[in-house]
Amino acid sequence: MKAKPRILTGDTSTGRLHLGHYVGSLENRINMQDDYDCYFIIANIQALTTRLDRPADVHQNVMEVMLDYLAAGIDPKKSTVFIQSEIPAIAELTVFFSLLVPCPRLMRNPTIKDEIRDKGLGDNYSMGFLMYPISQVADILAFRPEVVPVGEDQIPHLELTREVARRFNQLFCHVDPHTEDADYLSKGGLFPIIEAKLGRTRRLVGINGPGPDGSLLKMSKSLNNAIYLSDDPDTIKKKVMSMYTDPNRLKATDKGQVENNPLWIFHETFNPDKAWVHDAEDRYRAGTIGDVECKRKLVDVLVALIEPMRARRSQYEKDLHQVKTLLREGTANANELANQTLLLAKEAMHQRYF
Amino acid sequence: MKAKPRILTGDTSTGRLHLGHYVGSLENRINMQDDYDCYFIIANIQALTTRLDRPADVHQNVMEVMLDYLAAGIDPKKSTVFIQSEIPAIAELTVFFSLLVPCPRLMRNPTIKDEIRDKGLGDNYSMGFLMYPISQVADILAFRPEVVPVGEDQIPHLELTREVARRFNQLFCHVDPHTEDADYLSKGGLFPIIEAKLGRTRRLVGINGPGPDGSLLKMSKSLNNAIYLSDDPDTIKKKVMSMYTDPNRLKATDKGQVENNPLWIFHETFNPDKAWVHDAEDRYRAGTIGDVECKRKLVDVLVALIEPMRARRSQYEKDLHQVKTLLREGTANANELANQTLLLAKEAMHQRYF
Repeated sequence: MKAKPRILTGDTSTGRLHLGHYVGSLENRINMQDDYDCYFIIANIQALTTRLDRPADVHQNVMEVMLDYLAAGIDPKKSTVFIQSEIPAIAELTVFFSLLVPCPRLMRNPTIKDEIRDKGLGDNYSMGFLMYPISQVADILAFRPEVVPVGEDQIPHLELTREVARRFNQLFCHVDPHTEDADYLSKGGLFPIIEAKLGRTRRLVGINGPGPDGSLLKMSKSLNNAIYLSDDPDTIKKKVMSMYTDPNRLKATDKGQVENNPLWIFHETFNPDKAWVHDAEDRYRAGTIGDVECKRKLVDVLVALIEPMRARRSQYEKDLHQVKTLLREGTANANELANQTLLLAKEAMHQRYF
Repeated sequence: MKAKPRILTGDTSTGRLHLGHYVGSLENRINMQDDYDCYFIIANIQALTTRLDRPADVHQNVMEVMLDYLAAGIDPKKSTVFIQSEIPAIAELTVFFSLLVPCPRLMRNPTIKDEIRDKGLGDNYSMGFLMYPISQVADILAFRPEVVPVGEDQIPHLELTREVARRFNQLFCHVDPHTEDADYLSKGGLFPIIEAKLGRTRRLVGINGPGPDGSLLKMSKSLNNAIYLSDDPDTIKKKVMSMYTDPNRLKATDKGQVENNPLWIFHETFNPDKAWVHDAEDRYRAGTIGDVECKRKLVDVLVALIEPMRARRSQYEKDLHQVKTLLREGTANANELANQTLLLAKEAMHQRYF
C-alpha cells in the first residue's frame, strides 16, 4: 500500500480566521484529510515579523487559530497541527536555505515588495521580514510535502520553495540540473519539487466598498471587512445587512449590477442553491428583487455554514487544556518528521558530526 | 562564591589555525581558562557561507580546528568546545534576533562591505552571507557571556551584538532605554551587553611582502602567507628564511629598517628575550647584524613555541575517536546552556506554549 501523499499548509497567527481563509484554503484542507497526510502549521514567528510590539497577541492568536481549525473541521486524529516556533528544525533549515538564496533574488519577490508598500514599511523593515520567504521555504520543506494548498498571493513564495529544493538537490544530492521536477526524488534528491493547490475562490472580497483604485478589496482583518468563522448569527446578520452592493441602485426596483457586487460574489461562493442564485441574479438585473430579500437569504446561507463551527468552537473553548494537549501532540509529531528531514539534509551537506 | 564570568569566542572552520589566530585570540583564551567559564564555538555554518561548493572541506576543517585548539592548550576539562550547527538554539535565536535588526542597519556593516569587496562577491552574495552577522550575535548571546575575546575586524559585529541585546532587553524585558550597559542585567534584562577583549596583537602580518597599496598584508590562509600551529620545524625554517624583510637592504651590512618589517614584527611579537630583540634591532638599523642570523633566531623562537603544540597535536591525531568524544561532550554542555537561554528568551517574548 502506497503511503498517502503529504501536504503542508497553515496560517499566520495574526487573528481569528474568516471566510476568506475558509474558501481560500481551509475548506480544501478539511476535504483533503482522508486522502492526504496533512501537516498544518500555525506560523507565530511569521506573525511576529510585523507585530513585534504585540507578542502576547501573537500568542493568544495561536490559540484562536487552533480553535478555528478545530471548529472548521480539522480533525487532530487525522491531521497534525503544530506551532512554528516549537520546531527547531525549521529554524535550522532556514539558516541552511538562506545560503542557497541570492540576496537580489529575494529582493525581487513581488509579494515582499507589495507588503513593504501596503504596510508602509519604507526602508524600515527588519532582516526577519526580508527573511520570511526563506523561513516559509523551511516551513514547507521540513515536511517534504508533495502538495501545498495556498492562496494566490503565496504563489511567489512557492516558486522560491521550488527553486531552493532544486538547488539543494543539485548541489548536495548531485541531481542533474536538467531533471524534470517530478523526477527529483527518484534521481536521489532529498526535497520534492512541490505543487501548489489553489482554493476554489482565490481571493474573497470583503463586505465593504471598493478601495481608492475602484476595485473591491480582499477580505482582511486589518481592513475591518471580514466575516469570521466565530461570528454569531446576530453579528453575521448585522454585517450582511450593511454589506456593500451596487451603489447605483437607489431603489430596489432599479436595475442592479451583479458583477463586482459582494452580495452576489458571496451568494455564488457560499449558496449551495445554485438555481436560486441564478434566478435571483436575473431578477436583480431586471430590478424585480430587492437587496433586503437577497441579503436575508445570504444571512441564512452563512449562518448555516458558520453556526456548526461556532458550536464546535464553544465546546473546545470550554476545555483549553485539551486544545493545548492537541497542539502539543501535533507538535511532537511534526518534530519527528522535521528532525528526520534535518538529519538527512545535514548528511547531504556533510555536516553530521556525531 | 561568585561564579566565574563567562566568555564566548571561536573560529570559523575554514582551515588550520596559524600564528595570526594565536596572537589574535587563541593565546588569550588559553590564559583565561582558569579564571573564566569558557565557551569556544567552531563555526561551520559561517564557513559554509563562502564555501557552499566544498562542504566536505568544512567538515574536515572542524576537526582541524579542534586539533589545533587541543594542541595549543585549550583544555576540554576546563573549557567547552562545540560545533555551531549542533546547537539548534543558535538557529532559533538567529531567527528571533533577525526581527530586531533593521535591514538598512545590516547593509551599513563595514565588515560585510569589506568582505563583499575583498571576495569579489558583487551582487552575487546569498541571504545567508548577509545574515551571518546576526547569526554571530546568536552564537554569542546564546551563551550570555560577559566578555568576548576577538580580533579587531570583529568589532563591528560585536557592536551589533550589543545593539541586539539592548533592543531585546528593552522590548521584551522592559528595561529602560536610558540604562547604562553594565546595569542591563540587574534591571531585569536577559542578555548582558558584552565587552570585547582584543588580543595583544590585533592584526599579525604575513610572511610575504606588501600588497598593491604598499602596506603589509594580514596573515591569512587565502594569501598563502601563514605559519601554521601545525607546521613542522623544517617548514617553519623554510618559511622564515624566505620571509620578506627590508627590500632596500641589499647587503647584510647596509642599514636596515625595523619598522614595517615582518622579521622584526615577529621578533617583537614572539621572542621572549626582549633584551636581545632590542639590541638586535639597534644593530640591524646600524647594519651590523645580518638577516640570516636574525631569521635563524626567529626560527628557534617559533619552533620553541610551536613544537610542543605539534607534539600534542600528533598525540590527538592518533585518537580521532577521543577528539570526537570531546567535541560531543562539549556540544552537549553548550546545548544545555543555549537551550536555557532560548527558553528564557521565548518566555520574555510570550512564545512559550508548553
